[in-house]
Amino acid sequence: MHLAYDGTNYRGWQTQLKVRTVQETLRDALTVLVKDHLGVTGCGRTDAGVHAMKFYAHFETDATPPPEIVYRLNAILPLDIAVYECFLVDNDIHARFSATYREYTYYIHYSKNPFRNHYSAFHPYTLDVDRMNRAAKHLIGNRDFTSFAKSGAPTKTNLCNVTLAHWEPRKDGAIFRIGSNRFLRNMVRAVVGTLAEVGEGKMNEDEFVEVIAAQDREAAGKSAYPQGLFLTDIKYPFHGSGNDR
Amino acid sequence: MHLAYDGTNYRGWQTQLKVRTVQETLRDALTVLVKDHLGVTGCGRTDAGVHAMKFYAHFETDATPPPEIVYRLNAILPLDIAVYECFLVDNDIHARFSATYREYTYYIHYSKNPFRNHYSAFHPYTLDVDRMNRAAKHLIGNRDFTSFAKSGAPTKTNLCNVTLAHWEPRKDGAIFRIGSNRFLRNMVRAVVGTLAEVGEGKMNEDEFVEVIAAQDREAAGKSAYPQGLFLTDIKYPFHGSGNDR
Repeated sequence: MHLAYDGTNYRGWQTQLKVRTVQETLRDALTVLVKDHLGVTGCGRTDAGVHAMKFYAHFETDATPPPEIVYRLNAILPLDIAVYECFLVDNDIHARFSATYREYTYYIHYSKNPFRNHYSAFHPYTLDVDRMNRAAKHLIGNRDFTSFAKSGAPTKTNLCNVTLAHWEPRKDGAIFRIGSNRFLRNMVRAVVGTLAEVGEGKMNEDEFVEVIAAQDREAAGKSAYPQGLFLTDIKYPFHGSGNDR
Repeated sequence: MHLAYDGTNYRGWQTQLKVRTVQETLRDALTVLVKDHLGVTGCGRTDAGVHAMKFYAHFETDATPPPEIVYRLNAILPLDIAVYECFLVDNDIHARFSATYREYTYYIHYSKNPFRNHYSAFHPYTLDVDRMNRAAKHLIGNRDFTSFAKSGAPTKTNLCNVTLAHWEPRKDGAIFRIGSNRFLRNMVRAVVGTLAEVGEGKMNEDEFVEVIAAQDREAAGKSAYPQGLFLTDIKYPFHGSGNDR
């Protein structure tokens, strides 16, 4: 399934006890339609409040999905989750483990604006984009990102192969794009928060390099707010409808 | 004061018991800064969930407003309320009673889109804009708008001098603008909901004329959702900073 969601009113993708998540909302809608107690697996786990402009999920069922499943799912799902397409895939394809590339985009605006806060983070000082880009290029490569991982989060390895990390100035703000084969929990927000310190002049390029090398979350800056963050791209190593959008 | 707000998280402008309103939030911030127990009067009363791109409010005080009042107010106020300007006016000027023109804009989109729902209403069928405009022109004039007023709302007169009522098609949606010397409570949303019935082909132009003539809220259609509605302009009969924006 190809879908998108506004994360404002969800405690992230992944089902948790007693809170509303996208995964649970989607599973409940699918269960009604497919009439099977099925599990839905997402391509990643966005944090609470983070949005997904492009997201894939899979489910397995022996039941026959009803015709017009996309139309009917959208009618059941709330307005902040939209399903664009459902298609059959081979049994060995997995929304999360088969994905080879993910890209996130972070939006920042500098002037207080009542109408941008759902999808962009207010930063009251202009950031030096060139300075941030000189630091950001040190993120590129297959590196250990422990300094930007939520401390205590259990993972086998903290290696990520980052192939894109770039800021672009925008009218009254800036956008940061970062692409990698995988991301650690909270990683993009910790990277953005630390690069913002570079952009404010509080940290220099050499210090940023030291933060990466430290492999210690305490070395990095604060996490940036979730509402500015979008999962914007995800790629699989096979062609199909999913890769055209 | 010239300000703007996102109405999503407020129960409208006007202070009410036990709920969060824009008026109360603004008054609390002003009280801290001006150190006076003052009242704030707004140019109108937006309903719960309705936004204001342009809004004026006044307050009276014998205390001296602090320097940099705009900067300091914005630092205290939440991100969804922004103050653009504060300026002194004559004692006989009133934010509400001195205003001679108000304009509202309503945004509709036709395709389910997770990222538009805060500021536009999802309408799953394309509306016939020409058909709606033929009906909307009957709103122009100094008329009794009882059919579009919240029933039971006490007002001396339901006469409004509507000088603008026009739909424009937009990419995947439509925009409605309506301008008048005054508006009754809930009026714009009732007009939009009724015109949407015309745009769907459920009501024709003659029937719309009958709805206006009926002077009965039961004759009109349902109220459109608040999140698509913005107060977008307000005019006063004197020149000054306020009228330049």
